[in-house]
Amino acid sequence: MSSLSDYIRDIPDFPKKGIIFKDITPLLKSHQAFSTVMNTLYELYKNKKIDYVAGIESRGFIIGSALANKLGAGFVPIRKKGKLPYKTISLTYDLEYGSDTIEIHEDAFAPGDRVLLVDDLIATGGTLKAAAELIGKLDANLIDIAVVVELCFLKGRETLGSYPLYSLLTY
Amino acid sequence: MSSLSDYIRDIPDFPKKGIIFKDITPLLKSHQAFSTVMNTLYELYKNKKIDYVAGIESRGFIIGSALANKLGAGFVPIRKKGKLPYKTISLTYDLEYGSDTIEIHEDAFAPGDRVLLVDDLIATGGTLKAAAELIGKLDANLIDIAVVVELCFLKGRETLGSYPLYSLLTY
Repeated sequence: MSSLSDYIRDIPDFPKKGIIFKDITPLLKSHQAFSTVMNTLYELYKNKKIDYVAGIESRGFIIGSALANKLGAGFVPIRKKGKLPYKTISLTYDLEYGSDTIEIHEDAFAPGDRVLLVDDLIATGGTLKAAAELIGKLDANLIDIAVVVELCFLKGRETLGSYPLYSLLTY
Repeated sequence: MSSLSDYIRDIPDFPKKGIIFKDITPLLKSHQAFSTVMNTLYELYKNKKIDYVAGIESRGFIIGSALANKLGAGFVPIRKKGKLPYKTISLTYDLEYGSDTIEIHEDAFAPGDRVLLVDDLIATGGTLKAAAELIGKLDANLIDIAVVVELCFLKGRETLGSYPLYSLLTY
């Protein structure tokens, strides 16, 4: 198989002018590339006693649920405001312009639960940091944050501060 | 383990007054229940030579990607308008009030590809029918439609007409 990065497609000016979007759909479409991603993450975390994989809407669901099932862990969705049906706790965080809010069910974790947080990509890191803080609010134990793609020039790793981060591919 | 239906939570008046929402997050959270769902679907489709599992945003991503990975198939997302970054084909369909549009990448399938379409739930069936039609527009071969929950009283199966449908749990 060719390199994993061959399956990441650059889309100029998406979602807006001047941004080069990293499209992971070719990677997901290739069962070999998708399996390679999952097997790599599985090997990293299989002995970490992960109780739950938390995935961020929407592409984080794709990476997170397959990994949860492979690890024999439960899957917990973290969603945009108003999407989760049960009682939630939420966190609002600043964007370049304006703000955004994410939510998690208040019964998603019990104190001490071992949680792996995943998303497809880290850019500026604001959403992942907010998600990590939500997990902390429930007193769960955030074992690691894993993403497929890290856009290093946007310094998401700095935004995350002391939160851990593993990325498969860096740009 | 108790019955799968014990892991589906009723949420009254969500997303709006008078609707009882079937919340699958307790099922996803339980690694046993989630594995049972995945193993059941895997057994059903493992010999069907599925090339791709297509999942509908957002909860269909959760069911679809784990199943794709388990089957050794690729995963293809079907999304709301404007969310997919590359060239798309789209389909607009009627809702009770107004309409909605879903999209798929135009290179998602080649003619004859064997596709399993999945979502978490079928209600009136409008979205799943539109997704099945999108798959047909790309001349792919829709092998089956699989959902975790079927709300029979909303007659989604009738909406689907001649499209096939498998559901794990019926209400």
